[in-house]
Amino acid sequence: MGSRERLVETMSELMWERGYADTSPREVRQRSGVGQGSMYHHFPTKRDLALAALERNVADLLPAASELDGRGDPLARIEAYLMRSRDALKGCKVGRMTQDPQVREDPVLLAPVAAAFARVHASWVAALREAVAAGELRDDLDPERLAHTLMAVLQGGYVLAIAQQDPGPFDDARAGALDLLRAAAPPGRDDTTQTDRK
Amino acid sequence: MGSRERLVETMSELMWERGYADTSPREVRQRSGVGQGSMYHHFPTKRDLALAALERNVADLLPAASELDGRGDPLARIEAYLMRSRDALKGCKVGRMTQDPQVREDPVLLAPVAAAFARVHASWVAALREAVAAGELRDDLDPERLAHTLMAVLQGGYVLAIAQQDPGPFDDARAGALDLLRAAAPPGRDDTTQTDRK
Repeated sequence: MGSRERLVETMSELMWERGYADTSPREVRQRSGVGQGSMYHHFPTKRDLALAALERNVADLLPAASELDGRGDPLARIEAYLMRSRDALKGCKVGRMTQDPQVREDPVLLAPVAAAFARVHASWVAALREAVAAGELRDDLDPERLAHTLMAVLQGGYVLAIAQQDPGPFDDARAGALDLLRAAAPPGRDDTTQTDRK
Repeated sequence: MGSRERLVETMSELMWERGYADTSPREVRQRSGVGQGSMYHHFPTKRDLALAALERNVADLLPAASELDGRGDPLARIEAYLMRSRDALKGCKVGRMTQDPQVREDPVLLAPVAAAFARVHASWVAALREAVAAGELRDDLDPERLAHTLMAVLQGGYVLAIAQQDPGPFDDARAGALDLLRAAAPPGRDDTTQTDRK
C-alpha cells in the first residue's frame, strides 16, 4: 500500500474511532508510519485528508445498497436490505459524520455524505416503486417519502442501539418497519403477506 | 444564575456546538465567566461537568415526550408528537451524544442518554398500546417494537436532514411513518383514517 493510501485508511479509522476534531495529523502520521513531508505532499491540510477519507468511506458503503437494485421480488429485496447483518453498536460510518460538529458545519466535508445518501435514496425509491407496481404495497403510499422513512429507521436505529449499548433497539426498529410495510399491503392482500411474521 | 448553573449551561452549549472532545475547560471558563477555583470546586473534572450538562439536556427534553402520555385519541397524540415543530438541522441534543466518540465509550456519560431514551420508549409503547386497544392500529402489531421504529424515524430523520442541509428528508421520514401507521389500521377501518392525507 502506498503512503497516500495508508494515510487515507488511517484517517478513515481515526475519524471513525474519535471523530474529526479529536484526530491530529500527528496521530495519523504515527499510526500510518508516513512521514511529515510525504503527508503534506499528498494532503496539504487535515481537511484535504479528511475529505479523501470520507470519500473512501462512502465508496466502501455504497455497494451494500445495490442489494436494493437487484432483480427478483421487490418486497423481498427491501426486506433483505433492511434486515441484513449490521454492527448496530458501530453505527454507520457515513451517517455518523453528520453528527461530527466540524464536519456538519463544513459544506465541502458534508458533500460526499449528502451524495451518498442521495444515491441510497434513489435505490430505495426504485425498489419501493416496484413494490407498489407489483401490488405488494398500497398505491397511495409515496415512495419518495417512504424511502426517507426507511433510511431514517436504519440511521436512527443505530442511535438507539448505541445509547443502550444493545443491538436490540436497532433490530426492533427495523423489524417494526417491516411489520408496517407488510400491514401496508393493498386491502385483501395483507393476510398472505403476514404469514412469516413471528 | 449561580456559578454552578452558569458552568452547566455553558458546557451544555459547547457540547452541543462542538462535541465533548473539542470543548476545553478553559473555554467553559471563558464563556461562562466563572474562575478556575470555582470551577474545580463544583466540578473536579471535565467529565463531572459533562455529566451534569448531559443530565440537564435530558431534563430539558423529556417534557416534550409527555405529549404522548396525554389524554384524548391515541393516534392523534402520536401524530401530534411525531409531527410537532422541531429544528431538523440542529438535531436531538440527547441523541447526538451517542455519536460523540468519547461519550459513546464512557458508560457513565452514556447512562443519562440511555435512561432518557428508555423513558421516551415507555411513553411511545403506552400510546401505541392505547391505539391498538382503540382499534386504530392492527392488533398483530407489536407496540414495543413499533415504539423503537418511530423513535428511530425521528433520530434518523435528523441524520438525513443534516446530511442534506435541508429539513425535507426529516419531514418526509416522519410523514412516511404516519402514512404507514394509517395504512396499518385494522381491515375495514383504513378508508376512514386516510381522509386527511394529501
